[in-house]
Amino acid sequence: MEKLEALRRLFPGQVDLSESERLRHGKDEGYPEEGEVLAVVYPESVADVQKALRFAREEGLAVIPFGAGTSLEGHLYPVQEAISLDFSRMNRLLEVRPEDFLCVVEPGLTRKALNEALKGTGLFFPVDPGADATLGGMAATNASGTTTVRYGGMRANVLALQVVLANGEVLELGRGVRKTSAGYDLKDLFIGSEGTLGIITRLTLRLHPLPEHIHTLRVFFPRVEEAAEASYKVMASGLPVARLELLDELALRALNRYLQAGFPERPALFLEFHSSTREALEAESALALEIMREAGALKVEAAKTEEERRRQWEARHQAYWALVHLFPGHRFVITDVAVPLSRLPEMVRYAQGLLEEMGLTGNILGHVGDGNFHTLVPILPQDYPKAEAYAEALVRKALELGGTCTAEHGVGLRKKKYLPLEHGAALELMRKLKDLLDPEGLLNPGKVLDTPPSSRYS
Amino acid sequence: MEKLEALRRLFPGQVDLSESERLRHGKDEGYPEEGEVLAVVYPESVADVQKALRFAREEGLAVIPFGAGTSLEGHLYPVQEAISLDFSRMNRLLEVRPEDFLCVVEPGLTRKALNEALKGTGLFFPVDPGADATLGGMAATNASGTTTVRYGGMRANVLALQVVLANGEVLELGRGVRKTSAGYDLKDLFIGSEGTLGIITRLTLRLHPLPEHIHTLRVFFPRVEEAAEASYKVMASGLPVARLELLDELALRALNRYLQAGFPERPALFLEFHSSTREALEAESALALEIMREAGALKVEAAKTEEERRRQWEARHQAYWALVHLFPGHRFVITDVAVPLSRLPEMVRYAQGLLEEMGLTGNILGHVGDGNFHTLVPILPQDYPKAEAYAEALVRKALELGGTCTAEHGVGLRKKKYLPLEHGAALELMRKLKDLLDPEGLLNPGKVLDTPPSSRYS
Ligand SMILES: Cc1cc2nc3c(=O)[nH]c(=O)nc-3n(C[C@H](O)[C@H](O)[C@H](O)COP(=O)(O)OP(=O)(O)OC[C@H]3O[C@@H](n4cnc5c(N)ncnc54)[C@H](O)[C@@H]3O)c2cc1C
Ligand SMILES: Cc1cc2nc3c(=O)[nH]c(=O)nc-3n(C[C@H](O)[C@H](O)[C@H](O)COP(=O)(O)OP(=O)(O)OC[C@H]3O[C@@H](n4cnc5c(N)ncnc54)[C@H](O)[C@@H]3O)c2cc1C
Repeated sequence: MEKLEALRRLFPGQVDLSESERLRHGKDEGYPEEGEVLAVVYPESVADVQKALRFAREEGLAVIPFGAGTSLEGHLYPVQEAISLDFSRMNRLLEVRPEDFLCVVEPGLTRKALNEALKGTGLFFPVDPGADATLGGMAATNASGTTTVRYGGMRANVLALQVVLANGEVLELGRGVRKTSAGYDLKDLFIGSEGTLGIITRLTLRLHPLPEHIHTLRVFFPRVEEAAEASYKVMASGLPVARLELLDELALRALNRYLQAGFPERPALFLEFHSSTREALEAESALALEIMREAGALKVEAAKTEEERRRQWEARHQAYWALVHLFPGHRFVITDVAVPLSRLPEMVRYAQGLLEEMGLTGNILGHVGDGNFHTLVPILPQDYPKAEAYAEALVRKALELGGTCTAEHGVGLRKKKYLPLEHGAALELMRKLKDLLDPEGLLNPGKVLDTPPSSRYS
Repeated sequence: MEKLEALRRLFPGQVDLSESERLRHGKDEGYPEEGEVLAVVYPESVADVQKALRFAREEGLAVIPFGAGTSLEGHLYPVQEAISLDFSRMNRLLEVRPEDFLCVVEPGLTRKALNEALKGTGLFFPVDPGADATLGGMAATNASGTTTVRYGGMRANVLALQVVLANGEVLELGRGVRKTSAGYDLKDLFIGSEGTLGIITRLTLRLHPLPEHIHTLRVFFPRVEEAAEASYKVMASGLPVARLELLDELALRALNRYLQAGFPERPALFLEFHSSTREALEAESALALEIMREAGALKVEAAKTEEERRRQWEARHQAYWALVHLFPGHRFVITDVAVPLSRLPEMVRYAQGLLEEMGLTGNILGHVGDGNFHTLVPILPQDYPKAEAYAEALVRKALELGGTCTAEHGVGLRKKKYLPLEHGAALELMRKLKDLLDPEGLLNPGKVLDTPPSSRYS
């Protein structure tokens, strides 16, 4: 195509038109359909982003920002002719200011690379989704992870953003301070907007002191219901839990095979406490254990070395890949509901019961300390509608209980249908904001919301 | 006026036209000029709010929501013909769900009344500005307080809002869960919008377990600089401080007179630790003390009883009134900068030095654990320009250091002039949002932003 030649000339050495890359950038980790972008551009600066946007506007192409491609809801699937902006070359750690507990990064830096680079500073960035996502992608989906129960998710840990709007304007949103009331909160409007309102080109992140003392536990229960109940009771006690994850039998079985891990194959809570003093830590862990024993815990294992601790959380983060391995040839439908804390046991019971009722295999795991868990349903293509029906039932139940259809994965294409139910009339205001910020519908069209009526691209 | 008669007929028993009330509702706690609204309406329901908005629209009157009137920046001053919506009759605690750590309130409930009503649940709402503000007003200014360093301010503790838009539409924003990524974050757009984007008619708030063990300290230093330096070092240690407040000599002198308190008249840090175990608490406090001794602490006092603890924080909250008492006939110019943590000592030094340089008396105190403090400058009317020049110099310095012109009090009328400096091009987007949500400029016009060009009311 002629316009792609022009794009190549505009970005010498920064455009990939190969089919494999066009396909890789047209899909995420979870969406079942294959998409294909027209071209992949690798911006190296904010000016490159502006230039790419201008080009796309002029040529009538959509733009889809691309981080690590680990999202799950069709976030990257092009619903029309689009170019992908891959941020892997904008992956620098620009500044670390340990004395202010903050750092400044480019959007393509991944969370693991960031924490690697922070070694020696005594600080870490806490948000740890199961994949090694980019910080730009994580901000764009408002990601969270195992430590969110203690340190908050992306919203709490992004202090400021630089964004480029569809019209090419560069804005600085938020400040590198712990609080501000200076005008409307634009930063949080862009966090979780999935590349549909603007493109994130720089992030100021909040860092936390590495805990001096850490205590890591694995507690096993007879059934997933007891584990869920226990997690709620630990939360209700007000203990400052740093991590509180549920893994069911199937997850542990999959991990034992995939990693030769040797975990008891029983529903489990993986917990952690962080403290600046050993005494605090011991007292907190002891109280948590007492609560869990009362709630029916069968067995407790504590990580005895840093290496064992590291392996435990690595296992938690590998759970998805272990399941993929256990079900070759399958895809996964992954639910992401969250409910008010007290409703978690009921919600987990429902999720578990419905799997049985519908004759589906499924794995239940997640960030139960936040009232959030996932069911991963491995499916062959013909079973997709059934798994989707399961997912929909879970969303309806979660909304009934006052919950949300997506706690952390975001909306993408697949969860759009639930937003009217969750937001009612507020959805119309979201549409108006999209229309205000991206009147032509240039940015990741069709995600979060349907393409605006005024779009040139619909 | 005829239209006011119509208003009275529309809201029988809910309108006050007396001059004293019209004056009381036209000013806040800090703005030097007297304003006067045309009428005060006391809504008792969402429907009343909608009705009042319709009336105002039809009659070409502006609407200014009113909580407790404790804001400081001209938030309530009518820049044109306006009616005040006073929420004191919508002050019910609608629901408490201890098991979900949340409650649902009407906007006119005050923070003290809420915590009074929560007694016996084992939970509390942490945000505690120095005045007994309403929860609606606190959300509208994104208020914070002494415990924000540990529990976050309003943004972190408001899970969901019901708002009425200028056009009368009622929206439900956010959900009663700990995290969600379901679409654009509208809730946070309204938090801190100072009544200019919509009217808050209901709030879902996050509650926290009352700490089982509390340790409260007063630590005295030779100079305010050492106290500021020590506060930064305590924060840098990563200790889970629950409160960390600076009070200078003048504040303690004022408090000793006002409350017969008997504090040493030395710059002080008031600190508190919260913990679920006594051991944790003791270890944390000991570490903090060690750090502060190294940083030059002269003297340490610990609250020995719950009553002493209560009195210590009551004193902190009374500091403003004690100063008012010490300077009869004066008004106060109050700064509200926040800077990155490591810059706090420099910022405090600057604030202190400039007072001396300009020959001003002033009091420095505030939430130093968040990098935020206030200088309170008592002035007689003729000195207002000088005090304003001082405040402006502090803002410029704070912005230079990467800080913000207002950490918690908000913009109102008085801080508008700093927003172009702080936000640059992003300010234009704020204007567009205002124009989108309130195209006629009906809602609290002239606050945060200048009245939009399209306003009927300018
Ligand atoms: C095994 C596995 C486990 C996971 N566990 C978690 C978990 O625990 N918690 C969680 O929250 N998520 C989890 N996820 C989902 C995923 O990791 C997150 O959504 C993550 O934030 C995506 O980041 P990414 O860099 O891969 O972004 P991508 O997938 O590349 O993009 C995601 C979205 O962000 C947009 N985007 C990317 N970069 C930018 C930018 N610079 N500016 C604007 N928009 C941009 C994209 O257009 C897209 O809409 C998991 C996924 C997998 C596969
Ligand atoms: C002694 C003293 C100490 C203070 N200490 C602090 C402190 O530590 N931290 C802090 O953050 N602030 C502090 N403040 C400032 C003040 O208390 C806060 O700004 C508080 O949030 C104002 O609440 P209010 O109910 O008095 O609101 P008001 O003053 O009545 O209104 C404030 C703003 O909110 C709007 N508003 C009120 N109700 C609604 C509603 N229902 N919907 C939409 N908009 C609404 C108003 O229009 C106005 O713009 C202090 C003030 C004083 C006098």
